[in-house]
Amino acid sequence: MSLKEEALELHRLHVGKLAVTPKMTVETERDLSLAYSPGVAEPCKEIRRDVEMSYEYTGKGNTIAIVTNGTAVLGLGNIGAAAALPVMEGKAVLFKRFAGVDAFPICINSGDPDEVVRTVKLLESQFGGVNLEDIAAPTCFEIEQRLIEETNIPIFHDDQHGTAIVTAAALMNALKLAGKAVDSVRVVVNGAGAAGVATVDLLLSMGIHDIVLCDTRGAIYAGRSEGMNPMKEALAKRTNVFKLRGSLAEVIVDADVFIGVSVADALTPEMVQAMAPDPIIFAMANPDPEILPEVARGLGALVIGTGRSDYPNQVNNVLAFPGVFRGVLDVRASRITLGMKAAAANAIASLVSESELRPDYVIPKPFHALVAPSVAEAVAQAAIAEGVARRTVRRLEVFERTTSLVRV
Amino acid sequence: MSLKEEALELHRLHVGKLAVTPKMTVETERDLSLAYSPGVAEPCKEIRRDVEMSYEYTGKGNTIAIVTNGTAVLGLGNIGAAAALPVMEGKAVLFKRFAGVDAFPICINSGDPDEVVRTVKLLESQFGGVNLEDIAAPTCFEIEQRLIEETNIPIFHDDQHGTAIVTAAALMNALKLAGKAVDSVRVVVNGAGAAGVATVDLLLSMGIHDIVLCDTRGAIYAGRSEGMNPMKEALAKRTNVFKLRGSLAEVIVDADVFIGVSVADALTPEMVQAMAPDPIIFAMANPDPEILPEVARGLGALVIGTGRSDYPNQVNNVLAFPGVFRGVLDVRASRITLGMKAAAANAIASLVSESELRPDYVIPKPFHALVAPSVAEAVAQAAIAEGVARRTVRRLEVFERTTSLVRV
Repeated sequence: MSLKEEALELHRLHVGKLAVTPKMTVETERDLSLAYSPGVAEPCKEIRRDVEMSYEYTGKGNTIAIVTNGTAVLGLGNIGAAAALPVMEGKAVLFKRFAGVDAFPICINSGDPDEVVRTVKLLESQFGGVNLEDIAAPTCFEIEQRLIEETNIPIFHDDQHGTAIVTAAALMNALKLAGKAVDSVRVVVNGAGAAGVATVDLLLSMGIHDIVLCDTRGAIYAGRSEGMNPMKEALAKRTNVFKLRGSLAEVIVDADVFIGVSVADALTPEMVQAMAPDPIIFAMANPDPEILPEVARGLGALVIGTGRSDYPNQVNNVLAFPGVFRGVLDVRASRITLGMKAAAANAIASLVSESELRPDYVIPKPFHALVAPSVAEAVAQAAIAEGVARRTVRRLEVFERTTSLVRV
Repeated sequence: MSLKEEALELHRLHVGKLAVTPKMTVETERDLSLAYSPGVAEPCKEIRRDVEMSYEYTGKGNTIAIVTNGTAVLGLGNIGAAAALPVMEGKAVLFKRFAGVDAFPICINSGDPDEVVRTVKLLESQFGGVNLEDIAAPTCFEIEQRLIEETNIPIFHDDQHGTAIVTAAALMNALKLAGKAVDSVRVVVNGAGAAGVATVDLLLSMGIHDIVLCDTRGAIYAGRSEGMNPMKEALAKRTNVFKLRGSLAEVIVDADVFIGVSVADALTPEMVQAMAPDPIIFAMANPDPEILPEVARGLGALVIGTGRSDYPNQVNNVLAFPGVFRGVLDVRASRITLGMKAAAANAIASLVSESELRPDYVIPKPFHALVAPSVAEAVAQAAIAEGVARRTVRRLEVFERTTSLVRV
C-alpha cells in the first residue's frame, strides 16, 4: 500500500487519531460520587477560592491547546479549520508520545486575528499553554504578540519558534564541524515568513551578528520601502550590518551559511558556488527543498539539512515542541523567553557528541530517547533562571508523574 | 478518609481526570510519516474536497464538546469557567465510560450569550455535537436556540433535556405502578428554570395534558404579568388548561404528581396531604430535595424520587446523556428532536420490567449495562424515523467500532 493510501486507511480506521480518556476507573457508586457529583464540588470550590488551584485539580496542569485557523497548513496553504484538524491531531499524538503532554486541537474557523485572540482568551482558564500552529504570516505575529500580552499562560507559535530552535541546534553543531566561530560567521536567511523571522531573532540572541534576511524582493535593509511589514522593519534594524542591497544571488556571495525557509529551487548551483568555502546549507522548504542535497553536496557544501525524513539532518520541529512544553508545564512558566528557546537549541545540539558529529549527523533523530527530557530540563532551568517560572519543583518528579498517566 | 478529602486527593493525584491519548503507536519513521507529515496531508485534502469527510478522518465522528460558562454549576451557582472545569471533566469521564464518546470540556469565560454562541460556532468544525452544561437560565435557552439555528451539529443542554428525559422515564413507570393514565394525570412542576421548562415540554409531547408549571410567584398562566420571560410565556399557553392561579400550595390540591426542580423544602407536608391519593413525588433539588423521602413516604406518597444516590429512584442524568450522544453520533443526526428525547425516555423506562417494578425501583441504576446501548439504539432509530439522520448504518457496528477504541 502506498503511503497515501495507508495514511487514509489509518485515519479512517480509528475515526481520527485522538481519544479523550479517563484517568480513573468508574465502576462503583463511590467512584461516581468522587469523579462527579457530589465529590467534584470540592475541587470546584478550591479553584473558586484560588484560581491557581486549576493547575492542581484539573487537566490545566498538563494540558495545552494546539490552536490553528488553518490559514497556512503544511504545504497545503489556506485550507481552513476543518481540513487542518488531521494535522493538529497528529501534533497532539506527538506531544503525548514524546513528552506526556495532553494536547487538544482548537481549530478556529476564522481568518480574523481578533476572533482568534478572543477565542483563545475565553478558553484560557482550562489550558496550561498554547501552541499556535499553521497560522499565516503576518497575522500569526499579531496573534502571538497579543496573546502573550493579554493572557497569563505561555504562547508558542511552533512554525516560528520550533523551526528556529531546531535550526539553531543544527547550525551550532554544523559550525563546530566547519570550525567557524559563532560571532564571525556570515548567515543568509531566505524567507521572511514566520519561520524566517523567528530564526533570525533566535540566532541574534545566540551571538550571531552577521545575518542578512531576504524575501522575494531580495535583502531586507533599514530604509527599504517596498514589501515591508512591522516584523521586517524591526529586523531590518537589527540585521544586515553592512547594509547590503540586492537579490539573494547578490547578497549570498561569501556567505558561510544559507538557511532557506522559502520555496523549492530558491538556491541555485551558482549561488552555492559563490558562497564561502565549506558552505553550510539548511534548505527547509517543504516538500521540495531550496536545493536538493545531492546537488549541494556535489558543489562542495559541507553540511546539508532539509525538512525531509528521507535525507540526513532532518530539521524536524518534533525535536523541540514536546520538550519545550514539558519544561514549561513542569515549572508553570508564564511565558517562553528567547533564553528558554536558546537553552532548548543548545540541549538538542548537545545530544550529538563530538565523537558522533559528522556532516550527515549534526542533529539527533526524532526517536532519540533523551531529546524531550533534555529539552524539558533545559527549558525549565532557563525559566527558573529568568524568573518566569511559578514553581521550582524538580522537573523529573513531575515528568514521571505526568508521563506515568499515559499508561493508566 | 471523607468523601471530600478523597475527592480532592483523587483530582490532585492525576492532575485532573482526563487524558488526551493517541489511538495509534508512533515508534518508527513510517509511523511518524503516517500520523504526521507528509501522510497527514491526505486526509486534509479529502476534507478540503468534502467537509463531510471530517466525520471519517478526524475525531469529529466520535467527539463532542461539553460547553459551559460556569454560570450555574451544580449547587454552587455562578462560579465561573475555571472553577467549573472539574465538573466538565467528570462529565467527559462518564461519556467515555458509559458510551465510548470522546468528550472534551470547552469552558468559556464569559456570561455574554453572544460570546458563548460565537465561540461554539468558531469551533463547530471539529465536534460532532455539543453538550451545553451548567449555563444559567434564561441565557441557556437563548444560547441553545441560536446554536440549533446557526450550526449544523446537534446541540443538547443537558440540564434541560437530560433531566427531562430521566424524569419522564421515571414518571412513566411510576404511573404504571399507580395505575394512572398518562392522558388524565394531573402534574405540577415546581421550578421554571432550565430543567422545569424542558421537562414540561417533553411531558407535553409524551401525551400528558394537564400540567401546571410554578415558579417562586406560583402558577404560571397565560396573561400573568410579573416575572415572565419568553420561555414562560410560550409554556403558559400550552399548560395550565384550567387557568389556575395562586401559590404552589393552592394549585397542588388534588395533583397526582409533583416534580420539583427548585429548592430544598419547597414541598411541605401539608401540600403532600392535599394531593390526590397515591401521590408521585420527584423532589430533585440538589443536594437537599424539596421534601425528604422519609417524610413524603410517611405522608402516603407512593413513589418518591430524588437527585441523590443515597435514596431509591435516583433521577440521574447519566442515564440519558451518554446514550443520547452515542445514538446521535452513530447516525450523524443533525439535531435532537422531541421525538428522540421521548424515545430515550421510553428506552430507559423499558429497562425496568413489570416484574421488577416497585415503588422504590421505577428507574434503572447508573451501572445497568443496557442503559446506554438501549438509549443509543432508540435515539438513532428515532432520528432515522424523523429524517434528521445523515446516515443509517447499523448502530451496533458503529458502537463496537468506537467503543473498542477505548481499549487501544
